[in-house]
Amino acid sequence: MQELVKRIQQDGNVLGDGVLKVDSIINHQVDPLLMKQMGELFAKVFAKRNITKVVTIESSGIAPAIFCALELGVPMIFARKSKSLTMNEELLTSSVYSFTKQVTSTISISRKFLTESDNVLIIDDFLANGQAAKGLIELCQQAGASVEGIGILIEKSFQDGRQLLEDMGIDVVSLARISSLENGEVTFIEADA
Amino acid sequence: MQELVKRIQQDGNVLGDGVLKVDSIINHQVDPLLMKQMGELFAKVFAKRNITKVVTIESSGIAPAIFCALELGVPMIFARKSKSLTMNEELLTSSVYSFTKQVTSTISISRKFLTESDNVLIIDDFLANGQAAKGLIELCQQAGASVEGIGILIEKSFQDGRQLLEDMGIDVVSLARISSLENGEVTFIEADA
Repeated sequence: MQELVKRIQQDGNVLGDGVLKVDSIINHQVDPLLMKQMGELFAKVFAKRNITKVVTIESSGIAPAIFCALELGVPMIFARKSKSLTMNEELLTSSVYSFTKQVTSTISISRKFLTESDNVLIIDDFLANGQAAKGLIELCQQAGASVEGIGILIEKSFQDGRQLLEDMGIDVVSLARISSLENGEVTFIEADA
Repeated sequence: MQELVKRIQQDGNVLGDGVLKVDSIINHQVDPLLMKQMGELFAKVFAKRNITKVVTIESSGIAPAIFCALELGVPMIFARKSKSLTMNEELLTSSVYSFTKQVTSTISISRKFLTESDNVLIIDDFLANGQAAKGLIELCQQAGASVEGIGILIEKSFQDGRQLLEDMGIDVVSLARISSLENGEVTFIEADA
């Protein structure tokens, strides 16, 4: 997506440890028009997959996911990273290991919101090593739901997340694909949409 | 907002301990059309306040806040409940005490995103004792920004949060106001919009 690539070039910052910081447009301050455009693009790309639920994980996936769900006319579900006081029903749970934080956390969705008749589109802001996406896929699989695809805003193509998901047979659509963050420079390869 | 009241009556559940559960429409599974309607209503109510930023707190405030920000044509900022790896700049921070969890947590916004020239509209899903809203107001005040109002989806009018905010001189606009959750019944009083 040309607009996202342009905005990363304009507003993104590469931190010393190979981290891309996009906190002025995506994951702290958020550009609502950009989110709307990205959410609607995912809806268009997956229009023929009969999506019944859009699933993401709190917090940075929520904005693009809600616009995608609106466009598709289906509910959005955000997986919880910690158990809420009111989550008193049976839960789908999965363990997600964070390489950056070096901790394993449990993510969950209430079982009542995903069934075997659901066709799920997963949306997330970043794809790096694919652990969060894998966790979301496992929640869907526990419910017997079909994962129809994954929409990613920014893919770090120099990490192995995409390969991991494709090896699981999942269609990955990334709006910006970054092949390198070396020397503080963002290098892009052709995106999927 | 009649539509929200109707949906709470239809989809809400009162838990034994006086907690209203709306996880099928607001804070776990999310209805995107309802969120759009609520966000746009806040934008309409605060249209003349020259809002420059919409501020919320992760995670359940993000969906209504992003639609409000889109309608107003301004950025949305979500305060973080935990420090992100990439938050390496100066932060505005505030302590928020949770009566339900009985813990104090620190919320933060990067200082660069709020200045004294900002007019802020705060959006959140619930208002009960007002501690989260008070924390967000403190972040704005540290930046010298003006808090032009607070938009709340569901106010528990039997708790003292609204009074706390009004005593600070803040305009509170709640789309549903609940006067009682006793005996498992949701009783409403007239909402602000």
